[in-house]
Amino acid sequence: MSRIVMKFGGTSVADLDKIANAANKVAQEVENGNQVVVIVSAMSGKTNELVGWVRETKPDYDQAEYDAVVSSGENVTSGLMALRLQQMGIKARSWQGWQVPVKCTGHHEAARIDDIPPENMNAAFDAGYAVNVVAGFQGVMDDNRIATLGRGGSDTTAVAFAAALKADRCDIYTDVDGIYTTDPRIVPNARKLHRISYEEMLELASQGAKVLQTRSVELARSYHVPLRVLSSFEDDISDKVGTVVCREKDIMENIKAVKGVAYSRDEAKVTLVSVADRPGVAAAIFGPLADAGVNVDMIVQNISEEGRTDMTFSCPVDQVLRAEKALKAAHEADDINYKEIIVDDIVAKVTIVGNGMRSHAGVASKMFKVLADEGVNIRVITTSEIKVSVLVDRKYMELAVRALHDAFELETA
Amino acid sequence: MSRIVMKFGGTSVADLDKIANAANKVAQEVENGNQVVVIVSAMSGKTNELVGWVRETKPDYDQAEYDAVVSSGENVTSGLMALRLQQMGIKARSWQGWQVPVKCTGHHEAARIDDIPPENMNAAFDAGYAVNVVAGFQGVMDDNRIATLGRGGSDTTAVAFAAALKADRCDIYTDVDGIYTTDPRIVPNARKLHRISYEEMLELASQGAKVLQTRSVELARSYHVPLRVLSSFEDDISDKVGTVVCREKDIMENIKAVKGVAYSRDEAKVTLVSVADRPGVAAAIFGPLADAGVNVDMIVQNISEEGRTDMTFSCPVDQVLRAEKALKAAHEADDINYKEIIVDDIVAKVTIVGNGMRSHAGVASKMFKVLADEGVNIRVITTSEIKVSVLVDRKYMELAVRALHDAFELETA
Repeated sequence: MSRIVMKFGGTSVADLDKIANAANKVAQEVENGNQVVVIVSAMSGKTNELVGWVRETKPDYDQAEYDAVVSSGENVTSGLMALRLQQMGIKARSWQGWQVPVKCTGHHEAARIDDIPPENMNAAFDAGYAVNVVAGFQGVMDDNRIATLGRGGSDTTAVAFAAALKADRCDIYTDVDGIYTTDPRIVPNARKLHRISYEEMLELASQGAKVLQTRSVELARSYHVPLRVLSSFEDDISDKVGTVVCREKDIMENIKAVKGVAYSRDEAKVTLVSVADRPGVAAAIFGPLADAGVNVDMIVQNISEEGRTDMTFSCPVDQVLRAEKALKAAHEADDINYKEIIVDDIVAKVTIVGNGMRSHAGVASKMFKVLADEGVNIRVITTSEIKVSVLVDRKYMELAVRALHDAFELETA
Repeated sequence: MSRIVMKFGGTSVADLDKIANAANKVAQEVENGNQVVVIVSAMSGKTNELVGWVRETKPDYDQAEYDAVVSSGENVTSGLMALRLQQMGIKARSWQGWQVPVKCTGHHEAARIDDIPPENMNAAFDAGYAVNVVAGFQGVMDDNRIATLGRGGSDTTAVAFAAALKADRCDIYTDVDGIYTTDPRIVPNARKLHRISYEEMLELASQGAKVLQTRSVELARSYHVPLRVLSSFEDDISDKVGTVVCREKDIMENIKAVKGVAYSRDEAKVTLVSVADRPGVAAAIFGPLADAGVNVDMIVQNISEEGRTDMTFSCPVDQVLRAEKALKAAHEADDINYKEIIVDDIVAKVTIVGNGMRSHAGVASKMFKVLADEGVNIRVITTSEIKVSVLVDRKYMELAVRALHDAFELETA
């Protein structure tokens, strides 16, 4: 007998029909002889509604109350899923985070799962429950108050249960049928990947492919949980479908240097011109930005003149005002010194990702040549062992993605 | 410093504006120097939506799952109310039933509150919280699963907290401004009562005045909790407004024999004609009815002929089919024996209530004369120490209520 975790996101449990559809998939796994833990999100739209009420009631809301309110959406779907499974003759029950318990630490609204003692859940399986349905996205703090894990947290819940209950795999059911070489809306011949490594998935996820929450992939990597992404809306749930995210050594097909192309449309580039170049200047700039909640991504420093430097970074467009405010305050406080701030808020980021880059030389230079041939000017470059990212003018983003997808022949395996 | 419980029903927290309005009343009590426990229902309509989903998913639903789903409505309002109070500068926090904990026993969907250990709530007051906001209608069973108290259960939650925390009073905010001598929609000069005894309120509540849940009044009587019913939608919350439900000895105005007239429109009268009259026949009839979930109200037995009797009872109209089915099954099983079942499903019940009946003779006969003078035929009569109920043709119900209200001069104090 295997034990598996199945996670259904908001669009997969959006209404009673969708819940019934998801329950059918659970029933298949039960018929296959598996013990199943089902993790559910709130019906799509519900969480946004609840968050809206919280923000309207108190714009600078108490995050513990936010968690108490917003977690209720998952409670509803977990009960309805258990009822639907019972209606199909399957012995099932629901669990809210505190009942398991899913022990959390850290900050409300962005809590981390600290521990999931498996005793209660194992006792339920021993008592004959074929399915334990758990409300995702939530847990309980030491002081018995409810915690939530941040948007997309149900993926993390699923992986954490798979690790705690030593599940054989963790299937993430969603509204796409797997991970693609790039966004098929931009490149129609994008190819679905059968397998991808945790590291590659992390780069794709953080680089703008929105299928899996980054933390869930990190957690899966730490605990070697085989993750599978597959569609809620297709009948086949056999091994043949979806994309498995697993260890690099479990992937046989890694012949290519580049595995996928990711993008992020709404980026901004901020340049501090002629910063006094002294030890500690980077900390003086990026400390206040972090305190202001600005997610700085790429950072480039160029020497411009003797003793002065230009400092460039990128961040999401909607954080630019916050960034400027923090930098001006630091300037007025004499913590940093610069001539001016130049903002370019119509850029986008394009990234190529692949474990194969480690062994293939010349991948970055090929990328630059492809973009140059298309007349796409590169504003900023950053690299890691398994990815190269560039900032380009936003209007060239789709062109760049298509050109790179073609050049690295990602449409074929 | 006083400690008070304030309960807001679904229409009083129906949206964010109404929650803000209710929070204003809480703020007034905080300014008056009170420690406040606020009990909230779900936003009106929410519970019905959740119940609908449960029934649609599994018509013969698991009541533990029903409770898990349906309790979520109160969780939302308790958090939003706490946030609203915080927004007004008041130190407040929300509590879900299991966090307090509100310990329950009995059956899911109709649980009873067994105990509310006051330690956590007192600790919060000691820590400087001026207001503890509690999700009504819910608690937790011994096995850590969520329980609900049945429809209207938030009234019971409020009274139970008032008893457990030794509150000085329990104010039930609702969409009417008090308890009236009868329904003002039927008798325009119905008078609002300033005080009414627990016993009278119980008769009015169970006889069709829908303002307070019967169990909450019983609980208030047991623990001597002074209950007040008042409007959420009027500004004045001083001692002058609303109706106080209290001990008979705390009421000075009990000069009148009759305090109020209640009615229940959708009643049915069922007669078993010529039942074999033997010991145990009543049990043989009403046992199966109870098992079938028929709420039998009035019961009258007439001798019709030697060794035979007619047995008449009343029940809500929508339970008649169930009653007939149960009786026919008992007949076929030879548990009971009758000639025929006669159903009159266009009757209504009219009741006069008043502690003063104990000391005033002739109240019942005056009632019968008033109805006779109006040409209203009485079908069935039952009495208790403080009430007289009659079944009449439904078309005469309003006429009977008005005539009795006039005859007993209830429009004047």
